[in-house]
Amino acid sequence: MNLMTLTEIRRSAQNGAVSARVHVQVESATPKVTREQQPYCELGLADACDRMTLRVWSDHPAYKACSALTDQNFIELTGEFHQHSQYGLEARKWTVRPLTPEEKAALLEGPAELRARQKTDSDFIAQTVDAIMDPRLRALCKAFLNEWGDRFRRTAAARNYHHARRGGLVEHTAQMMRIALEIAPLYPALNVDLLLAGILFHDCGKLWENSLPEAGFTMSYDERGELMGHISIGLELVNSLWRKLSAENAEAWRNLVPPSEDVRLHLLHLIGAHHGEPQFGSPVSPKTPEAMALHYIDNLDARLEMFAAGYTTAKPLAARIFDRVRPLPGNLVKSLEKFSG
Amino acid sequence: MNLMTLTEIRRSAQNGAVSARVHVQVESATPKVTREQQPYCELGLADACDRMTLRVWSDHPAYKACSALTDQNFIELTGEFHQHSQYGLEARKWTVRPLTPEEKAALLEGPAELRARQKTDSDFIAQTVDAIMDPRLRALCKAFLNEWGDRFRRTAAARNYHHARRGGLVEHTAQMMRIALEIAPLYPALNVDLLLAGILFHDCGKLWENSLPEAGFTMSYDERGELMGHISIGLELVNSLWRKLSAENAEAWRNLVPPSEDVRLHLLHLIGAHHGEPQFGSPVSPKTPEAMALHYIDNLDARLEMFAAGYTTAKPLAARIFDRVRPLPGNLVKSLEKFSG
Amino acid sequence: MNLMTLTEIRRSAQNGAVSARVHVQVESATPKVTREQQPYCELGLADACDRMTLRVWSDHPAYKACSALTDQNFIELTGEFHQHSQYGLEARKWTVRPLTPEEKAALLEGPAELRARQKTDSDFIAQTVDAIMDPRLRALCKAFLNEWGDRFRRTAAARNYHHARRGGLVEHTAQMMRIALEIAPLYPALNVDLLLAGILFHDCGKLWENSLPEAGFTMSYDERGELMGHISIGLELVNSLWRKLSAENAEAWRNLVPPSEDVRLHLLHLIGAHHGEPQFGSPVSPKTPEAMALHYIDNLDARLEMFAAGYTTAKPLAARIFDRVRPLPGNLVKSLEKFSG
Amino acid sequence: MNLMTLTEIRRSAQNGAVSARVHVQVESATPKVTREQQPYCELGLADACDRMTLRVWSDHPAYKACSALTDQNFIELTGEFHQHSQYGLEARKWTVRPLTPEEKAALLEGPAELRARQKTDSDFIAQTVDAIMDPRLRALCKAFLNEWGDRFRRTAAARNYHHARRGGLVEHTAQMMRIALEIAPLYPALNVDLLLAGILFHDCGKLWENSLPEAGFTMSYDERGELMGHISIGLELVNSLWRKLSAENAEAWRNLVPPSEDVRLHLLHLIGAHHGEPQFGSPVSPKTPEAMALHYIDNLDARLEMFAAGYTTAKPLAARIFDRVRPLPGNLVKSLEKFSG
Amino acid sequence: MNLMTLTEIRRSAQNGAVSARVHVQVESATPKVTREQQPYCELGLADACDRMTLRVWSDHPAYKACSALTDQNFIELTGEFHQHSQYGLEARKWTVRPLTPEEKAALLEGPAELRARQKTDSDFIAQTVDAIMDPRLRALCKAFLNEWGDRFRRTAAARNYHHARRGGLVEHTAQMMRIALEIAPLYPALNVDLLLAGILFHDCGKLWENSLPEAGFTMSYDERGELMGHISIGLELVNSLWRKLSAENAEAWRNLVPPSEDVRLHLLHLIGAHHGEPQFGSPVSPKTPEAMALHYIDNLDARLEMFAAGYTTAKPLAARIFDRVRPLPGNLVKSLEKFSG
Amino acid sequence: MNLMTLTEIRRSAQNGAVSARVHVQVESATPKVTREQQPYCELGLADACDRMTLRVWSDHPAYKACSALTDQNFIELTGEFHQHSQYGLEARKWTVRPLTPEEKAALLEGPAELRARQKTDSDFIAQTVDAIMDPRLRALCKAFLNEWGDRFRRTAAARNYHHARRGGLVEHTAQMMRIALEIAPLYPALNVDLLLAGILFHDCGKLWENSLPEAGFTMSYDERGELMGHISIGLELVNSLWRKLSAENAEAWRNLVPPSEDVRLHLLHLIGAHHGEPQFGSPVSPKTPEAMALHYIDNLDARLEMFAAGYTTAKPLAARIFDRVRPLPGNLVKSLEKFSG
Repeated sequence: MNLMTLTEIRRSAQNGAVSARVHVQVESATPKVTREQQPYCELGLADACDRMTLRVWSDHPAYKACSALTDQNFIELTGEFHQHSQYGLEARKWTVRPLTPEEKAALLEGPAELRARQKTDSDFIAQTVDAIMDPRLRALCKAFLNEWGDRFRRTAAARNYHHARRGGLVEHTAQMMRIALEIAPLYPALNVDLLLAGILFHDCGKLWENSLPEAGFTMSYDERGELMGHISIGLELVNSLWRKLSAENAEAWRNLVPPSEDVRLHLLHLIGAHHGEPQFGSPVSPKTPEAMALHYIDNLDARLEMFAAGYTTAKPLAARIFDRVRPLPGNLVKSLEKFSG
Repeated sequence: MNLMTLTEIRRSAQNGAVSARVHVQVESATPKVTREQQPYCELGLADACDRMTLRVWSDHPAYKACSALTDQNFIELTGEFHQHSQYGLEARKWTVRPLTPEEKAALLEGPAELRARQKTDSDFIAQTVDAIMDPRLRALCKAFLNEWGDRFRRTAAARNYHHARRGGLVEHTAQMMRIALEIAPLYPALNVDLLLAGILFHDCGKLWENSLPEAGFTMSYDERGELMGHISIGLELVNSLWRKLSAENAEAWRNLVPPSEDVRLHLLHLIGAHHGEPQFGSPVSPKTPEAMALHYIDNLDARLEMFAAGYTTAKPLAARIFDRVRPLPGNLVKSLEKFSG
Repeated sequence: MNLMTLTEIRRSAQNGAVSARVHVQVESATPKVTREQQPYCELGLADACDRMTLRVWSDHPAYKACSALTDQNFIELTGEFHQHSQYGLEARKWTVRPLTPEEKAALLEGPAELRARQKTDSDFIAQTVDAIMDPRLRALCKAFLNEWGDRFRRTAAARNYHHARRGGLVEHTAQMMRIALEIAPLYPALNVDLLLAGILFHDCGKLWENSLPEAGFTMSYDERGELMGHISIGLELVNSLWRKLSAENAEAWRNLVPPSEDVRLHLLHLIGAHHGEPQFGSPVSPKTPEAMALHYIDNLDARLEMFAAGYTTAKPLAARIFDRVRPLPGNLVKSLEKFSG
Repeated sequence: MNLMTLTEIRRSAQNGAVSARVHVQVESATPKVTREQQPYCELGLADACDRMTLRVWSDHPAYKACSALTDQNFIELTGEFHQHSQYGLEARKWTVRPLTPEEKAALLEGPAELRARQKTDSDFIAQTVDAIMDPRLRALCKAFLNEWGDRFRRTAAARNYHHARRGGLVEHTAQMMRIALEIAPLYPALNVDLLLAGILFHDCGKLWENSLPEAGFTMSYDERGELMGHISIGLELVNSLWRKLSAENAEAWRNLVPPSEDVRLHLLHLIGAHHGEPQFGSPVSPKTPEAMALHYIDNLDARLEMFAAGYTTAKPLAARIFDRVRPLPGNLVKSLEKFSG
Repeated sequence: MNLMTLTEIRRSAQNGAVSARVHVQVESATPKVTREQQPYCELGLADACDRMTLRVWSDHPAYKACSALTDQNFIELTGEFHQHSQYGLEARKWTVRPLTPEEKAALLEGPAELRARQKTDSDFIAQTVDAIMDPRLRALCKAFLNEWGDRFRRTAAARNYHHARRGGLVEHTAQMMRIALEIAPLYPALNVDLLLAGILFHDCGKLWENSLPEAGFTMSYDERGELMGHISIGLELVNSLWRKLSAENAEAWRNLVPPSEDVRLHLLHLIGAHHGEPQFGSPVSPKTPEAMALHYIDNLDARLEMFAAGYTTAKPLAARIFDRVRPLPGNLVKSLEKFSG
Repeated sequence: MNLMTLTEIRRSAQNGAVSARVHVQVESATPKVTREQQPYCELGLADACDRMTLRVWSDHPAYKACSALTDQNFIELTGEFHQHSQYGLEARKWTVRPLTPEEKAALLEGPAELRARQKTDSDFIAQTVDAIMDPRLRALCKAFLNEWGDRFRRTAAARNYHHARRGGLVEHTAQMMRIALEIAPLYPALNVDLLLAGILFHDCGKLWENSLPEAGFTMSYDERGELMGHISIGLELVNSLWRKLSAENAEAWRNLVPPSEDVRLHLLHLIGAHHGEPQFGSPVSPKTPEAMALHYIDNLDARLEMFAAGYTTAKPLAARIFDRVRPLPGNLVKSLEKFSG
């Protein structure tokens, strides 16, 4: 039987039952009872890109074993997978066994394809940052990647809506940088150094809202994120890196043009304004072309990713029509097929 | 004394009085009286990119001559120009004389720089359209340029907000196509043919809302625009071209993939959804990635142009800070200066 | 046991269990399992005005037969019907059998009372259209009824909210025309010909959003409806009829007053503006008294029908008080009883 | 020279200067100075349907006399009237004289045409009320007309938007009753007695917000209106009439069906809910069909009157297009001309 | 086994199963069937501050007895209580028995702690009212407490959001008065008499929306509340008390300053404006400092109570973080612990 | 002739012309021309609490002298002051002279009454801060007052709406602290130390948005304020003070309860959430009782101050009724007079 990821199983199950093996971390094991007072155990399971729930009934041979699992456990689940219209992905006729240390290590690394893609994206970000001309912005970006790069590579771009997977923020950031680099020549007045640095830092506060641990796939709630919000955390992070670097480079930066304090304020502005409007949580509205461009580049990539994901997860309503997936504004319709001679 | 455009004068007058000559069309000549019962004549004047108001007092030597002007008249206005904080651009110590036929023809052609830029943009649009692979979309775009190209090149992209000048729609359309071509490789699933055709047609209804006559600079109100709105006019225009072409090419288009009716519907969708949300007048929300991409590309270019224009026309509040220019969301701040070694 | 419609059963079941027979089309037969892994089959059932869901457990004698049903099947369901507070109408102790061809034909015709009412409404529309004085509007309306009358008579006025049944659009349209004819003498300036034609066409785009097939009761989703929305489809339909008729009547229509193009634009305006405000999907706001009147007549009839339907379907909260049924703005209260001497 | 009303002058002045006489009340005489320190006197003038401002310069022969005027003065103003695009209607080369007692009495009665129309409307209301079958609602309506009829006939329907003239509320109420009587047969379930009573009382609180004095045309601000709003005042007025009548008719009303308390509550509901939604100031949303019908009938008549008024007062933007007049949602377009053979 | 209240059980059950006895009123006993056609009986149970649902399966020994219960029954429920994440509080291994008359009387009195607290609050209100200096406002408040005090003490402050228990309105009112008395010295211009009377009456219409019967804990829906809303009911109640008192005190109140009618209008204003904005159902916005102060004092106390309640009932998301409880605007975070040396 | 402040003059002028002397700083002297081409000079004048505009015509004896003034000049203006309905406060028959150094110093100190009030408020803040029990919050508050106290005392609470005068922030902060101290005993769970510190810092970002210079009364626009907004500036300021103090007190703070990082986060939360909702610019919504209390205390004091100011500056509409002063929600009505025996 094939070893598949949860996402691969979910896609296949759109067309009927799938027999497969899957490697997952146990997120939680909660004892429950049905309304009819039948006890069962609810397992939360996760891999690098997806999650599912497994209900273990008290008459299942693995009931006792499963009830004892914790988030330190990594298991192989083998069975027949179905897509239930109300409850989502479900397993039947299943068995479990613990992963070997090698399997667990492989699982934590994530699927090869994802790993390769995120490696490419991560390298691209590093190269792009290296090419920033303004020494202050370049130093700041590099310091961030040095100090926080690991955590950055474990962070999702959002809790639900888009790129909601370990490393999703790296993918989103790299794609935004690519757009910026493509568009910049069309608007020669844009300060590209600033725009690229703004892209790198715009969601860096999410390292405390949507990061995942080194040895697991659980995105927990964080009091710092709740009390400050990722925009304010991002501002604080930049300020803290900036303070250190400007102390170290006091002499070198003193007479640069534009003045360093201007650079700092404009970069903070790009972070603070990137949600575009107060009702979406921006403490300030975009007041420079760079801030406005960043806002639209962010939205463009996020929405296109939502379409890509929606086509595989949204409930079909009719041929080529899918149910709305918020925050998209309406139902989804399949793209027009490309003309091919 | 220098011959300048109204926009050039407006920019110079930000730094104090300007002595200059300007060539303009008379839009209107309205007899008025002040509250103190002093009669005067109010001239509306326009050139290719801008407009101003000239008040002619009854004791001015040209009062009688000016009172007789109509929108058939083209004049040179020579004088000292000031920026009045409440009333905008004003002329003092001025004289007028009719333009020669050659001067009038030159004026109607617009400034050389603008002409060159719009020529480049117009040619770029034609080449881009030629490279569309889907024969139906290509034929439709070319038919539009053939049949309506002249009117297209005389149309503004908006009444006020951005590219509000003769030919502004060509500039906006070309720039959107450039963005689309740059971005497309980053999103291989996008149907670029459809996206480009959607860009060409997205505002084509404005040929009846914001077009200017061949021999003048006046953008009037149009009953068709009022009763239908530019989105519905655009849908109708595409349908009318499509009907003709699909009759002529019935045989050739019969078995193409994707089917022609699909192509038509998706193109209409891009037009109908390009404002993004119902509250901005879209009868349908974006339901495909191409429609979503078009919406953001449209906004991105429009907003960046609003910044560019705002920096020269908005009221300064302090060094590098300008008063809000709607529909931008707040005050404007000057871009961070680029680092230059 | 009585043969009843689904709506009749639903109403009776508000007062307790009902034993009855009902004739329905099978919309769908979906194999499912409960959370406890018990397989069952879910049948979607529909008649002319209503729909219900029947769960067939695997130990039911008809389980196998029911699992094989398709939307080509028409059945009689006999049993005891209950109103479940969470799951709605449910059947117990039931049996099924296929309908005879005569029974199926009778079912497809709909209940006699509904048929008679819709026949009256349909005739009234035809007569009203005949009495339109403007030859262009009259010809257009008649052409629509000739060409699309059958589909029109199979279309619902909405998917959920009001008149959501086959022929519901005919009922809604006729009632709106009656209101218009009653109100018109009170506002002598209104162009009644235009208002009546606008009423006929205002929702004609729904022939592609909410129509039902000739031999069934299923309202499916339609890509054209999704991509264009019913307002734009309606504009296109009128344009297409208009083009044909104005070619055929070119001579006769040439010198009529008002000019034919004015007539066309004002009619399109009534369609485009009938939702009243952009946030409800109108690409243009009402700019003439006829457009404004149409908007309010549409709402008045729709809301009163929502009350009528709500009184029989909404969940009672207390005597004479019912739970909110969207889009009504709050709970429903029973009308004040009429005084009767 | 013709004696005209202010409205007649305003309409004529759309086509150029008008020489005329007009009879008006002085609302106020305020001493002012121009920015250039020239003193002048500003007279507020009003007749039955309209108002204007007259500036009296210090070198005008009537300056001293005009400065002494109060709201006890009624004058004839003779002169040449112009429409100033910014300041509205203006008079030049004018003279004034006091009205004779006969002229003043005639002015206070209002123009004959308006008087006749409002007499018709007032009589129609009385007859309609007489025909209400429920004895409680009929008695209540008649008590209102007896006790408050004079004030009712002096009240405007609004401060600005529609029927903003003495007696405007009578015109609006009568027209709403006519609509209700026409529509009622189409919705047999409607309680027409309740609907008619609701129409009579829905704006009765405006007798304290928008009433005019017996001997003048000034609509002042009222502390009661400010502190309570016209809906709450209306509820209080109905309650106060009801209390008196139900005491007097305790015996006769005791056993009527429906119970009197139900009648009272439903009538109060129609008043409280007639603005339709909380954001427009309704303390409760419409929860019965009668309340919903009243809401739409109110809006329908108000909006159609706004169009009728707007066509004569709104600023023309082009042939058949007029500038927006709030609260209408967009520009106004002239109605389609009626077909006339 | 301990006798606990429902709220005490709910709190304890956050940390695991609780064995306890609880005394409750039966609100309703509804026969139901599961989807699998198994009959059961659903009991609604309530005590002074809380409510729960008990499902009685047909194989439970008490099934028959429970099915016969009505809202006249008061029972002791003994068992093991669990917090089910989806269905809330549940009982297992339970037994029931009827309460003795003494137990029932004790239950109806509510828990001693609550009773003591509400007694304190009620006394505080009476004392505060006694100290009002304006004889009209003092008389009005005292008349209200005399005539409606019992019902007042049985009324909740809201159906769900805050103080949603018998007597909750007394607690909320007393706390608002305390705030007003504390704040008043800081704003010497405030009319404290008016503010205190406004606080007493601001929600008095809830005596008909959210009151509970003398011998039970059920808050039903009321037609008067639906048709009028609590604000209008409150206005009517004050008017009716005022009428009686001002008749009785006609002589004494005649020449007081400020005039009695001013006092009445300002008090009504405080009631009408206390929701602050039309979209929250206020027929008038706050136009005096007292109305504005009342609005904020009301909100301040309501929101702080929502936090206090939310900390014990909201679903925990992580340590010290709780899920959003509407109408609070976001998740809840535990207060910062107080510093304690 | 009396020496008055601008505010005193403005109040007196509501009742007619006032002859007075006033000491002011020149904010600006701008050469202008009227529409009739008459040159004049516009002087912006300001004192501690108010500002006015003086137009100096070219035929005024002081024209030349005034045209040479800069913001380094402080003058006495003597004349007759009028309230112009359109242009506000105006001076006639006026003369000017420079202030002596003593007069200038006195002016810069502000009126004695204001100085005394702000001294009281400033002292109260210092004492309140001293009484904070948590050593970290106390140290932070004291460090702020030490380091930024002077600037704090020169800052307005807002640009326009309330306390828009030098030192207004001190007044607003002190009053909020007083409210907090009064209310705290009523809500024993509140962390008062945190709430007081939150009040001190909630608007501290305004030291860069609304501060005034030491030697003048001009509130200019600041790029930092534009790019970051006062909330983010406030967060940064607290962080910067915190870093310094926590380095200095590393040992002493190490084992305190609650942990210092919790204290820091909760304080930042109070600043970030004090606008209450995202649409008013808060990057995070209030998630603790302290944050919610701060939000309402802030609003309560601000609104009551708006009423106090509005009564003296708003345009009267009728006796005791004033025109709306944004952001108050409607017209203002005079408070009910207090009862006085």
